Amino acid sequence: MGRTSDAREKILGAAQALIELRGYSALGVAEICKAAGVPKGSFYYFFASKEALALAVLDEHWADQERTWRRILTSEAEPLHRLRLLFEATEAGQRAGRQSCGTVSGCLFGNLTLEMSNHTEAIRGRLQEIFDAQVDMVESVVAEALARKEVTVADTREAARSVVAQLEGQVLFAKLYNDTRRLGPLWANCLALLGAPAPSEVAGV
Amino acid sequence: MGRTSDAREKILGAAQALIELRGYSALGVAEICKAAGVPKGSFYYFFASKEALALAVLDEHWADQERTWRRILTSEAEPLHRLRLLFEATEAGQRAGRQSCGTVSGCLFGNLTLEMSNHTEAIRGRLQEIFDAQVDMVESVVAEALARKEVTVADTREAARSVVAQLEGQVLFAKLYNDTRRLGPLWANCLALLGAPAPSEVAGV
Repeated sequence: MGRTSDAREKILGAAQALIELRGYSALGVAEICKAAGVPKGSFYYFFASKEALALAVLDEHWADQERTWRRILTSEAEPLHRLRLLFEATEAGQRAGRQSCGTVSGCLFGNLTLEMSNHTEAIRGRLQEIFDAQVDMVESVVAEALARKEVTVADTREAARSVVAQLEGQVLFAKLYNDTRRLGPLWANCLALLGAPAPSEVAGV
Repeated sequence: MGRTSDAREKILGAAQALIELRGYSALGVAEICKAAGVPKGSFYYFFASKEALALAVLDEHWADQERTWRRILTSEAEPLHRLRLLFEATEAGQRAGRQSCGTVSGCLFGNLTLEMSNHTEAIRGRLQEIFDAQVDMVESVVAEALARKEVTVADTREAARSVVAQLEGQVLFAKLYNDTRRLGPLWANCLALLGAPAPSEVAGV
């Protein structure tokens, strides 16, 4: 059983790397298996279809990212500072990706939303769940900051959505211009969207 | 010559519709020609490659959108009100698309950025030019509003980029949730990003 689960992990790893590089539609099962170094027969032992693989890649990537988001956004730091740490972690992740493969790969979830959400309802549904979970986590922090009167928002849900939308939009430009410095304004923009004082006015920042 | 230029237009129209529906990578030349109702031989008379077609689709779509953006953003309306009209036009366009084809197709430029910008440098370069032109137009309006002391931004370029990033991020969510109401907060968010008074405080809005 050690060998079979190893093959599944190899397929998932190769698929994620290839999707980040070239998108999902352009990939074939044979190519994924070749990159993973596993026989093509193994693929259908683990995955009923290419779509099932895409869902597994989403789940695996989100399991990793959710751990990071949860660690940062539920830490002991001041609520607004946690958001800053999240943006810094995002920038560091994209910078590491650029160093290892030469290009800013962007957000796998955003990439697949724009490429796939109108093709398959299963992938659309999974991506909606993932972005809902991101918004939930950001909303909790916004609500904490609101209780401390550090932000002025009428609707914490809408505010959290806008922060995540700004993140996705700036990551899109970081990918297009292959430049992670595009993520620099995220913190100041987040404060503006939340009606918080500008960075220089926030104590300890 | 009437018939040949007609075939080129048919190919461009079919390609744009298919790209909006299914992305670029998944399409084949034969499928595009079938949808356009032209013989496959015509394709290579007009386009050297599928990439050349994608560039032509981008140019044609941008020529249309640039006219709309320019008309709205250089109108006689108050500067900030022009931005509001731009968001309303964006929402109306996405709503019309949803009514005609059942799904929110999102922004063709954003879609192709996330699907294609890391595959071909020609498409990346063209998309950079298009987004630079969008930011130029928004920046002019922000600079006018700044001269009238209606906004408080340290860097008009950065501010314009953030407004366009917010637009792309919210359009991504409108597509994912297939719901154009996701574009509703754009105006209030734009004012927040520009350090302008909230909507209820802006005269005449």
